[in-house]
Amino acid sequence: MHLNEKKIDSELIFDGKVIRVTRDTVILENGQTAFREVIHHNGGVCVVPVDDNENVIFVRQFRYPFHSILLEVPAGKLECGEDPEACGRRELREETGAVSQDFCYLGKLYPTVAYDTEIIYMYLARELDFLTQALDEDEFIDITRIPLDEAYRMVIDNEIFDAKTQLALLKAYHLLRGGN
Amino acid sequence: MHLNEKKIDSELIFDGKVIRVTRDTVILENGQTAFREVIHHNGGVCVVPVDDNENVIFVRQFRYPFHSILLEVPAGKLECGEDPEACGRRELREETGAVSQDFCYLGKLYPTVAYDTEIIYMYLARELDFLTQALDEDEFIDITRIPLDEAYRMVIDNEIFDAKTQLALLKAYHLLRGGN
Repeated sequence: MHLNEKKIDSELIFDGKVIRVTRDTVILENGQTAFREVIHHNGGVCVVPVDDNENVIFVRQFRYPFHSILLEVPAGKLECGEDPEACGRRELREETGAVSQDFCYLGKLYPTVAYDTEIIYMYLARELDFLTQALDEDEFIDITRIPLDEAYRMVIDNEIFDAKTQLALLKAYHLLRGGN
Repeated sequence: MHLNEKKIDSELIFDGKVIRVTRDTVILENGQTAFREVIHHNGGVCVVPVDDNENVIFVRQFRYPFHSILLEVPAGKLECGEDPEACGRRELREETGAVSQDFCYLGKLYPTVAYDTEIIYMYLARELDFLTQALDEDEFIDITRIPLDEAYRMVIDNEIFDAKTQLALLKAYHLLRGGN
């Protein structure tokens, strides 16, 4: 297949807490060599929690790369070897205090295909019961409820920027409301 | 505002062709220090090209982090200081040979909010005329046309994985078909 690239070398640049960075040497289809800068990430999950009054439960969180507080659905990193659904239920519980009796897979997304191995698995959580939040000690998160129809409008009108939040909301909306 | 983090130091880890990596030291709301691993990226654009027969023009491209060929809408990196719309028109022309008389902004996405500064701007391109492809010499791309309704179904049924492609298609579909 003429689109393939073959790795012939890999240099470890950085082995951090969240990411690992390598600079790989590949052979292209035309026989030339090229470098590929790659972020290695363990992957994550996000969850659209919809309560019995059809409110979506969002988290507001400071996101350092943007130096601003972003509106997102609950989400988190996969532990090594962790099942994505188990991770989604864990993060939902930790960040919002909610446990769900109806947890449904919405698909996956590759956020940054050119240079990052991260995959995010999306879920819809309904039939929620609320216990207490159980944040990590260095985690600072505010909870906000927004009606599902209003949240959908905010995505369409470009008022929400986080990719996983936009996509998971549109998919959840499609599932719950049907139509387009 | 209790969610903020303040940078007190930044260590340059890697200054590559596509990404720059830093490890920053921040002060949290509770007075403790923490590290933030940050990928710095210049941002990009993606374009949903829809021809007069309502086919979406996709590109198939080997994506090294996934060791597989992915289905995506045309896209590319912003040059330093480049206007996103100009970049979108340039990438559309280079990758598919198309020029558009009706180029419309669909919003932006932050692919990886936890550790990457990248922003992708999304566009819908219609009223297309086709010239010749003008790929970079190390770029290998196949073109595929898929009817708009079928492309939408593929997103809903989790057959397309790239985040920008999924989101831009859902937004384009909403604009062109209305409804949900």
